Amino acid sequence: MRRIEKAITDKKTITELLNKGRYITIAMSKDDIPYVITLSYGYDNSRDALYFHCANEGQKIDYIKYSSQVCGTIIEDNGYNEDCVQAFRSLVIRGRISLVDAIQEKRHAFDVLLNHLEKDPSIMKKKHFGNDKNYIKTCILRLDITEITGKEEKAD
Amino acid sequence: MRRIEKAITDKKTITELLNKGRYITIAMSKDDIPYVITLSYGYDNSRDALYFHCANEGQKIDYIKYSSQVCGTIIEDNGYNEDCVQAFRSLVIRGRISLVDAIQEKRHAFDVLLNHLEKDPSIMKKKHFGNDKNYIKTCILRLDITEITGKEEKAD
Repeated sequence: MRRIEKAITDKKTITELLNKGRYITIAMSKDDIPYVITLSYGYDNSRDALYFHCANEGQKIDYIKYSSQVCGTIIEDNGYNEDCVQAFRSLVIRGRISLVDAIQEKRHAFDVLLNHLEKDPSIMKKKHFGNDKNYIKTCILRLDITEITGKEEKAD
Repeated sequence: MRRIEKAITDKKTITELLNKGRYITIAMSKDDIPYVITLSYGYDNSRDALYFHCANEGQKIDYIKYSSQVCGTIIEDNGYNEDCVQAFRSLVIRGRISLVDAIQEKRHAFDVLLNHLEKDPSIMKKKHFGNDKNYIKTCILRLDITEITGKEEKAD
């Protein structure tokens, strides 16, 4: 068995991994002290951005307010095989993260999130949509992707 | 169904997650530009450190040489349930990462890695041990843990 590690360069596979993944681990930095968070996301294909719904406080907000520049990774774990081979496909994403303020974009973000994460998004949409109060207090983040690299390791 | 997110504070569960995990995603920083890598690890219980075997080049080495301060996360993915609940247990680890130079510690690191990752470590040990040449060119990193926090989210 050999380790085969190769770059993923085709846009189709990258888009597949973005649509298939459910959460991303994001690295941030403040005064060169790194911090890491993992968040469920919804991928907005047309905007090439990720949306997050998260708590309106905590370390990540302090980091984001200091610098919007982040680097995240989405991992598809394909199991640990013999001969020390951890099979995976992964993306490393660079981009800018920001807080979403406008109600209209918050509504859009929820739509993206529910379509991405839920088997039957209509159930949750019926439950939560139609009342703007649901969005006002909610913290929504958007990560605008500026660069993506992909990598695959498999056993052969 | 309610979301229940709680801190994991007991040492036993933290040690269990360290021993059970197979890879960690690590955030690093250089001039406040964050970078993220994911590596298979072996946990050294007695030293409270993680060992990694990796390529002797690339961006991560540049980052580590700039600053040893890292922040990593180990995630146990327990599935996505109804009502937008991603069940998980996770650790966030702060610490210092460094290159291991001494042959003796490299040998120890391989022992830790194989015991951690392999079902039958003796096969790989027989194959690779006993010849110090195998270690000289090999890049081994050690992450000395200084702080761990844990979090659990489950559906109820």
